[in-house]
Amino acid sequence: MRFDLMRRATQWILLAILSMGVQATAIARGPVVQALVGATLIDGTGRPPIEDASLVIADGRITAIGRRPDVKVPSGAHVVDLHGKYLMPGMLDANVHLFFGVTIDALIRYDDRYEDVIAEAAQVALKNGVTTVFDTWGPRQELTRVRGQIAAGQRQGSRIFLGGNIIGLTGPTSTDFYNYRTLLGKAEADRIDARWEQGAGPELLWLTPDNVRERIRAYIRSGHVDFLKYASSGHAQEQFIAFSEAAQKAIVDEGHRAGLTVQAHSTSPESLRLEIEAGADLLQHCDATGLAEMPEPTLTLIAEHKIPCAALFETQKHLAWVLAQDGEQSDGYRSAHIKHENDRRLVAAGAMLLMTTDAGVLPADIKEVPKFSAAVSGDDLPIEMGQGHFRWLEAASELGMKPMDALEAATINTARAYHQSAEVGSLEVGKRADVLVLSADPLADPDNYRRIERVMKDGQFVDIQSLPNPRVLTKP
Amino acid sequence: MRFDLMRRATQWILLAILSMGVQATAIARGPVVQALVGATLIDGTGRPPIEDASLVIADGRITAIGRRPDVKVPSGAHVVDLHGKYLMPGMLDANVHLFFGVTIDALIRYDDRYEDVIAEAAQVALKNGVTTVFDTWGPRQELTRVRGQIAAGQRQGSRIFLGGNIIGLTGPTSTDFYNYRTLLGKAEADRIDARWEQGAGPELLWLTPDNVRERIRAYIRSGHVDFLKYASSGHAQEQFIAFSEAAQKAIVDEGHRAGLTVQAHSTSPESLRLEIEAGADLLQHCDATGLAEMPEPTLTLIAEHKIPCAALFETQKHLAWVLAQDGEQSDGYRSAHIKHENDRRLVAAGAMLLMTTDAGVLPADIKEVPKFSAAVSGDDLPIEMGQGHFRWLEAASELGMKPMDALEAATINTARAYHQSAEVGSLEVGKRADVLVLSADPLADPDNYRRIERVMKDGQFVDIQSLPNPRVLTKP
Amino acid sequence: MRFDLMRRATQWILLAILSMGVQATAIARGPVVQALVGATLIDGTGRPPIEDASLVIADGRITAIGRRPDVKVPSGAHVVDLHGKYLMPGMLDANVHLFFGVTIDALIRYDDRYEDVIAEAAQVALKNGVTTVFDTWGPRQELTRVRGQIAAGQRQGSRIFLGGNIIGLTGPTSTDFYNYRTLLGKAEADRIDARWEQGAGPELLWLTPDNVRERIRAYIRSGHVDFLKYASSGHAQEQFIAFSEAAQKAIVDEGHRAGLTVQAHSTSPESLRLEIEAGADLLQHCDATGLAEMPEPTLTLIAEHKIPCAALFETQKHLAWVLAQDGEQSDGYRSAHIKHENDRRLVAAGAMLLMTTDAGVLPADIKEVPKFSAAVSGDDLPIEMGQGHFRWLEAASELGMKPMDALEAATINTARAYHQSAEVGSLEVGKRADVLVLSADPLADPDNYRRIERVMKDGQFVDIQSLPNPRVLTKP
Amino acid sequence: MRFDLMRRATQWILLAILSMGVQATAIARGPVVQALVGATLIDGTGRPPIEDASLVIADGRITAIGRRPDVKVPSGAHVVDLHGKYLMPGMLDANVHLFFGVTIDALIRYDDRYEDVIAEAAQVALKNGVTTVFDTWGPRQELTRVRGQIAAGQRQGSRIFLGGNIIGLTGPTSTDFYNYRTLLGKAEADRIDARWEQGAGPELLWLTPDNVRERIRAYIRSGHVDFLKYASSGHAQEQFIAFSEAAQKAIVDEGHRAGLTVQAHSTSPESLRLEIEAGADLLQHCDATGLAEMPEPTLTLIAEHKIPCAALFETQKHLAWVLAQDGEQSDGYRSAHIKHENDRRLVAAGAMLLMTTDAGVLPADIKEVPKFSAAVSGDDLPIEMGQGHFRWLEAASELGMKPMDALEAATINTARAYHQSAEVGSLEVGKRADVLVLSADPLADPDNYRRIERVMKDGQFVDIQSLPNPRVLTKP
Repeated sequence: MRFDLMRRATQWILLAILSMGVQATAIARGPVVQALVGATLIDGTGRPPIEDASLVIADGRITAIGRRPDVKVPSGAHVVDLHGKYLMPGMLDANVHLFFGVTIDALIRYDDRYEDVIAEAAQVALKNGVTTVFDTWGPRQELTRVRGQIAAGQRQGSRIFLGGNIIGLTGPTSTDFYNYRTLLGKAEADRIDARWEQGAGPELLWLTPDNVRERIRAYIRSGHVDFLKYASSGHAQEQFIAFSEAAQKAIVDEGHRAGLTVQAHSTSPESLRLEIEAGADLLQHCDATGLAEMPEPTLTLIAEHKIPCAALFETQKHLAWVLAQDGEQSDGYRSAHIKHENDRRLVAAGAMLLMTTDAGVLPADIKEVPKFSAAVSGDDLPIEMGQGHFRWLEAASELGMKPMDALEAATINTARAYHQSAEVGSLEVGKRADVLVLSADPLADPDNYRRIERVMKDGQFVDIQSLPNPRVLTKP
Repeated sequence: MRFDLMRRATQWILLAILSMGVQATAIARGPVVQALVGATLIDGTGRPPIEDASLVIADGRITAIGRRPDVKVPSGAHVVDLHGKYLMPGMLDANVHLFFGVTIDALIRYDDRYEDVIAEAAQVALKNGVTTVFDTWGPRQELTRVRGQIAAGQRQGSRIFLGGNIIGLTGPTSTDFYNYRTLLGKAEADRIDARWEQGAGPELLWLTPDNVRERIRAYIRSGHVDFLKYASSGHAQEQFIAFSEAAQKAIVDEGHRAGLTVQAHSTSPESLRLEIEAGADLLQHCDATGLAEMPEPTLTLIAEHKIPCAALFETQKHLAWVLAQDGEQSDGYRSAHIKHENDRRLVAAGAMLLMTTDAGVLPADIKEVPKFSAAVSGDDLPIEMGQGHFRWLEAASELGMKPMDALEAATINTARAYHQSAEVGSLEVGKRADVLVLSADPLADPDNYRRIERVMKDGQFVDIQSLPNPRVLTKP
Repeated sequence: MRFDLMRRATQWILLAILSMGVQATAIARGPVVQALVGATLIDGTGRPPIEDASLVIADGRITAIGRRPDVKVPSGAHVVDLHGKYLMPGMLDANVHLFFGVTIDALIRYDDRYEDVIAEAAQVALKNGVTTVFDTWGPRQELTRVRGQIAAGQRQGSRIFLGGNIIGLTGPTSTDFYNYRTLLGKAEADRIDARWEQGAGPELLWLTPDNVRERIRAYIRSGHVDFLKYASSGHAQEQFIAFSEAAQKAIVDEGHRAGLTVQAHSTSPESLRLEIEAGADLLQHCDATGLAEMPEPTLTLIAEHKIPCAALFETQKHLAWVLAQDGEQSDGYRSAHIKHENDRRLVAAGAMLLMTTDAGVLPADIKEVPKFSAAVSGDDLPIEMGQGHFRWLEAASELGMKPMDALEAATINTARAYHQSAEVGSLEVGKRADVLVLSADPLADPDNYRRIERVMKDGQFVDIQSLPNPRVLTKP
Repeated sequence: MRFDLMRRATQWILLAILSMGVQATAIARGPVVQALVGATLIDGTGRPPIEDASLVIADGRITAIGRRPDVKVPSGAHVVDLHGKYLMPGMLDANVHLFFGVTIDALIRYDDRYEDVIAEAAQVALKNGVTTVFDTWGPRQELTRVRGQIAAGQRQGSRIFLGGNIIGLTGPTSTDFYNYRTLLGKAEADRIDARWEQGAGPELLWLTPDNVRERIRAYIRSGHVDFLKYASSGHAQEQFIAFSEAAQKAIVDEGHRAGLTVQAHSTSPESLRLEIEAGADLLQHCDATGLAEMPEPTLTLIAEHKIPCAALFETQKHLAWVLAQDGEQSDGYRSAHIKHENDRRLVAAGAMLLMTTDAGVLPADIKEVPKFSAAVSGDDLPIEMGQGHFRWLEAASELGMKPMDALEAATINTARAYHQSAEVGSLEVGKRADVLVLSADPLADPDNYRRIERVMKDGQFVDIQSLPNPRVLTKP
C-alpha cells in the first residue's frame, strides 16, 4: 500500500527551488508591483469567495490578498480596477499531449518543428485559462526545451510539467497508436518513436522487475522529467496488463527514490487495482474501466484514501453522439457509458478528482482525414485542446459535482496531486500569480468558465489575442 | 508456489475410471489376445531397449512385456512376428488445434462440419504415430463430440483430451487472431467466436479475481473439458499480460478443485514467471519469451522443480528460412532465435520437456491465400499436423537432447504432465496398448521416427493407409 | 448507328415460342378459365383506365378485356369480384441481381445453395409485384436452372430473363467488386468468379476486337443467356472505358446475329456515347455519368431515338441522406446529384425510361458488417429487392414524370426494350396474365403501388404471404 | 493515321533556338576550345567507329570531327589525349521520373524541397552517362524551374525535357498510384496531386472530346511543357482504356498545333492500338501489353512505320527474380514474360526502339518500407535511376539487338523521337558536345557502358565524383 508521501517533502521543496531558479529570469517585464482590486475572488482552496477583493502581486508572486479594506496596496503599485469581474486561479490540466502527433502528415511535416508545435499547444491552453499543464506522453527532448523556453520567458505558453513517455508503451507509429509502420522505413519509424520512448518503451515489457528498475533509473538520470507515468495496461489493447505488479512496484519505488510523483495509465479494473497496490501517486483516467464497471472495493479505496484520480469526464451531449454513432451495443458506447457511471459514483463518493482532458491540438484538417474523421467529428469532443477543459467542467456539473469542488478539481487538486501546491493551484500569498479574470461567476454556471477576459501568468497579463503565434497545426 | 499435486490423486483416479467407461465400448473389434514378438522394444520409461521382446495385449491393454524367453504368450493369442522392427509407445502431442479455423473460407464453409474437420485432423495425427493429442484451443462442443465418437470407436482418430478455449482469449475472428470482424456481421462473428470461448473469453479480462473464479466454475460445470488452459499473456500482443497474478491463482485453484490440470499460455518472461507463481501445472510454450531471453532464475525454477515445459522446438532449417525471410534485425527472427537459445538452455539444464507443436491441418490451398502465404511457406513448418512432431524430434536432436530423453518427451513426459500416465505414454503392463511399429531405430536417428509401418491404438492395428477419411481440408 | 432491330424479328418470335415451350408445363394448376371483374383496369399501354372492367384469362393468358358490359365471361369461368380495386400489369425490373453475392459470408456459406438464394430473391420480387426480372450480372448456370424451374412451375418466383456476366468484368471477389482475393486461395477465388464470368470475364479486355468477337460467339453458344450485357466502362473505376468502340461493335454485332438484345454498362459520358455509337439496344443506368453531367447531344440522341434508358432514380430522401453522410463536396454526393439532374433532364426530354433498381436481396445482417454498414444504412436505399422499385416510382413522381408514364416505365417500356412485349408488360389479349390487384389507384399516388393485395402470374394467383420460402438470406 | 511531322519543323527550330537562349548562359566556364584526341569514337548515327579520332569543341558545340589526320585542331585549343579510350554521345533516357514521390514520407518531408530532389535525380542520371532525360510524370512547376536552373548553369544535372502530368491520370496520392488518401486531409491530398495534375488530371476523363480539347489548350498555354503525354490506358487498372479514341485524337491534334510531340501511356493491346490510330508520336512502354501478347498487325504497324517505341527491357536475371517471387501462374510474371516476348519480336522486326527506364531515385530506405519492400528488392531492378539504363542495355544484348542498334536506341533514336536530333543524340558537327569517355568498348560488351571515366555535357567535363550534391533521397 501507499499514501504517505510526506517523507518526500524535502526533496520536493528542493526541486521546487531549483525549478524556480530556472523560471526566475522570466519575471521582469511588467510592472513590479500590481494590485487587482474590486473583483470577486475565488481563491481555489474551497474558501468562500471574497467580494470586492484586493490581490497584490510583486515579482510574479502574490504578496497580499483579502477584502479591499483589509489589504494595503503599496504605493507605486499599478492598480487594475476589476469591479464586476471574477478572479480565480489559473487552471491546471492533469493530462495533455502538447505534441499529439496523430496524423502521419504532422509527424513528418513538422519533423524539425516539434518545439513550435508544442509551444503552439501550450499557448492554446494558456489562452483558454489553463496556466499549467502536465504533459503525459510526448517527445521528451523537445518538451524539455519548450518547458525551459517558457520558464525563461523566451516563449509564451502554459507552464509545462512533463513525464516523457508512458513507460512501457511505444511512440506514435506502432499498432498500439496510429499504425504507420507499413508506410515507413524501419529506421525512420524507430527514430520517430524514439523521440517518445527515450529508452523506456515497449522493450521494458520483456524485462524482469529488476531489469525494469535499472532501466527506469537510467531513464530518470538521462533526462529531466518532472514525474513518471507508466503503463499499467496496454493502450490499444485496453484489457491487457502491461507491467506485472512486481515491475510496477519497482517503477514506483525508483520514481520515489528520485523524488518524483509516479502515475499510471490504466484502462481496466485489474490494471487500476494493480497500480493502486503498486503505490501510484496519481491514477490517470481512473474512471476508464472498459467493459466492466469499477469494482466497489476499488472505488472505496480511491475515495477513502483520497488517491488523486484524473477522470475523463464527458458531457451528455458527447455521450449522445457516441450512442448515435456507434449504437447501444457497441463496445465504444458501452465503455463510454460505464465510464460515465464510474464518474457519477466517484463524484458521489467524494473522491479527489482532477480535471484531465488528454487533449492536444489536432491538425486543422483532421476531420477531412478518413482515418480519423469519424473519431474527431463528435459533439463536445473532450480531447480538443483549449475546449476540452471547459467541456470537462460542464460535465462535472451534469455529474452533480458541487461548483466549488469542480473548481478545485480544475485548480488546487491537480497541484496537490503533482506536489506543486506550494507554487500553483490557488491564490494564496507566496504563490505564483496565475490569475484568470472572468466576466461572470464560474460557480454560478460552468459555462462562465469560458468568459475569460484576461489571463495573468507569473504576475504578467498575457496578450491572449495574439496566441497562438506562430500557428502551425492551427493554421487554417 | 505449486508442485504437490498428489493430494488430487484420488480425484484423478476417479476421472480415469469414468473416462475408461466411456471408451470401453470401442475395444471389441480385433483379436482379443495378441502378441507382438521379436522386435526391439523401447518402452518409453527410459529403460534400455529390450531386444527380441514380446508384448502381449488383451482387451486393448498390455498384459505382459519382456524378453521373449521371459514372456509366456497365452495359447490362442494372435502372434505377430516383428523381427527386425522397433516398437515404441504411441506418441503424445502436448498442444494441437484439431480445428485450426485459420482461413475465413474454412470457418464459414465448414460451419456445419467442424466435427468432420476435427476428426480428419485426429486421423492425420494418428496416421503419423501420434496416438494421443491434447487440444488446447478449439470449438469445445464439437471437440467434445468427436472425443466421444473416437472413444466409442465410432470414428477413427488420435485419442483426444481437450481444454476448450484459452481462457481470457477470443475465438478466431478477432484482431487477436485472424481479424475477420470487418467482413462479418457482429452477431455472426460473435457466434463463431462463441464456439471457442464458451463463456470464458475476453470478457473475463475485465473482471475481478473473484468474479473470474465464478466464471471458471461455471465454465467447468457447463462442459466436459479435460484440463484448463488460460492466457497468462496476450496472443497477438505477446508482451502484454492477460490475467493478473491474483486472477491466475483463482483460475488454477478452481481447476484444481475440479481435479483438472491447469496450464497457461505465456509469451514473455513476466507472464511465464506469473504463471509459475500462480501454480500452473504445465507451461505451454515456455520457451517463447519474445524479445528477451528466459531469465536465469525462471530457468532454474523450471528445471529444478521439473515443471512440465511444452517447448516449440524448431529445426535449424526452419530458423534459416525465418532469417532469410525476415532478416536478422526483424522481431520475427530475433524472437525465433531467442526461443532457440532458450531451448538449448532448457535441454542443457535437464528440464522436463514435452513435445508440442501447436499443429493443425491447414487448408490445402492456404499457401495460395495472400494473407497467409508468407507465414506458411517456410521450410520445416512446425505447425503442420502430421509433420510437425517429426520436425520437433529432429530439432531435439540438433539441440543436443539425448535420444532417449527426446523419446520420453514425445511419450511419457506429456502423459505425466497431464496426469494420464496410468493410461498412456509408455509400454507397461496395465496400460493401453498404443504401439508404433517402426522399421528402423528411432534412437539411432530422429529421422527414423518417420519410418512408421504400423500403428496400434487400444490394442487394434489401424488401417493408416485409409486415413484421413473423409477428407475435408486435405482434399486437394 | 443503330435502331433497326426489326430484321431480327423472326429470330425473336422463334425464341419466344421455344421459351414458351419450356414454360408451358407450369400452367395447369389453377382454374382453367377465370374472370376478374369490377375493378378499374390500367392496361400498361398508356390507354386511359377502364372502370368496372372485366379481364378474362384462360390457360394463363388473357383472352378478353374491356368494360364489363362489353366482355362476355365464358360459362364455367371462375369469377373474382374486384369492385373497388385496381388492376395493372405485373411490373418488370430492368436490372436486378438475384444473387448479389456481396458478403464473403454469403459467397462461401451458400456455395452450394446459390439456386435457393436466387429463387428467394425472385420470390421477394414477385411478392412485391415485380412479375418479371432481368438479371444483369450473376452466376449463369444457377440462374439458368432457376429460370427453368420457375418457368416449369417447380419453383415460385418472378419470371427471369438473364444476361450472365457483364462481359469484360469480373465475378465478385476482385477489386472491381468486393475485394476478397487476399483472403482466398487463388483457385478458390477463380472458381467463384468463374460462376459469373463463364468465359466472358476481364481477360476479354486484353483481346483484339476480332478475338473478342470469337469469345462472344463461344459465350453465346455455350449457354442460355436471354440477352447480352457488356462493360462500356469499368465498375469500381467508373471513369475508365472497358471495351474500345471497335470491340463494342463486335459484341453488339455478335449479339444481334444470335437474336439477342445487347445492353451496356456505362458510368461516364464517353462510355455512354461509345455504347450508343456501338448500337447497344438498352443503356443500363444511362443516367450515371459520374462527375460530369450528361452532354446535351447525348441526351438529345437518347430522347429522339427513344433508346431504352434504364435510369437509377433515387428519392429526395435518399439524396438527402447521401448529402448528410458524405458532404456536399464529396464525389459520392456530387455524382448522385448529377445523376439526379440527368434524371430530371431525361424526364423533361421525354426519353424512353425503364424502371431499374440494380436490386438484390442483401443478407439480413449486412448493416452489421463494418465493410458495408455505411453503404447500406441509408434512407430509401434503392438496391433493396422488394422495396427499390417502389422507391423508384416515388422518385419518378418527384422528378415530374406523369403518373401514366411512370407506370409504363415500370411495365411496357422494359418489355419492349427487351423485345418481350408480345408476352408481358401490358394487359392485352394474347399476353401472359401477369396482373396486380391494388387497393388504391397507383396513378393517384405513387405510394399506392405498395398497396398490393394480390399478385397473379401466368394466370395463377400467387400465395404471396408464404414467400419467400425457403428463407436463406432473409432468415432473421 | 500519322507519321509526317515534318510540317512542324519550323516550329521546332524556333523552339530549339529559344531554349538555346536560355541555356547560353551556362556555357562560359571551361576552356572555349577543346580537342579530344586519340580515342575510338562512336558517333551514335550508326556509322562505323572512327579509330584515333579527333573531336573539336567550341562554345559547347562540336565544330569538327573525324580521323585525327583529317581534323585540324585550332591553335590554342585545350587538347585532351584519350588514347585507348572510347567516345560516344551522352545517353538519353526516354522516360524518367525525377521526382518519383513514391513514399508518403518523401512526399511530405520534402514538400518544400521538390526542386532539390529533382536536381539530385538529374545529377544521378548525368553521373551515369545520361546527359538528357525526358520526364514523363512529375510536378510540373518544380521540374520547370530545375530545367531552367540546369540550362542556365545554376545547377548541375542531366538536361531535362518535361511533359508534366500523364494527362487524364492523377498525382501520387490516389488509388491509381500509392493510395495515401485515407491518411491525408482531402485538401492536402488534392494540393499534392495538383502539383502533378496541373489541370490535366482525372477530371478530363469525364469530359467530351471537345471539352478535353479545350482543357489541353489551356494546359499547354499555362505552362512550359516540352511535350505531351496522355493516358491511353489506366495506370493501376492496366486493362482499362482512359481516353476514348475521339478524345485521344483531340489531344494529339492540340499538341501538334502547339508544335509539341505527343506520346501516350498504354498497357494493353487495345489502348496501344488506339493511340497509334490517334496519331501519337511516341509509344511509351509499347511493349507492355499485359496479359495478352502484342497483336501481329500492331507489331507490323510499329515496325514498318518506325513509330518510336520506348520499350521497358528487363534482364533475364530480373525476370528470373519475378518468377521466383511471384510464381509462373501469377499475373505479375505472366505479364513480364509477355512483355519480354514482345521485346524479342520488336527487336526481330526492326522496330525503332528507344531506351526507356521509368526510373527515379528511390528513397534510401525504401527496401525497409513494408508497403514497397517486395516490389523494389528484385535483382536488376529496371527503375533504379543511374542503374536502370545499364540494365536496359544488357537486356538489349540478351534480346539479340545488335550492339550498334542498342547504342542508337540509347542515343539518337530518342533524340529523333522527341524532335531533338538537331541538338543532341549523336556526335556531329553543330550539335551540343555531350560526350562520354569510356575505358572499354561498349559495342564489344554491354557491360562496358558502365566503364564511364568522364562525362562531358555542353562541352564541359562534369565533376561526376561530387554528384549528387546535395544529397536528399540518397542520403544514407
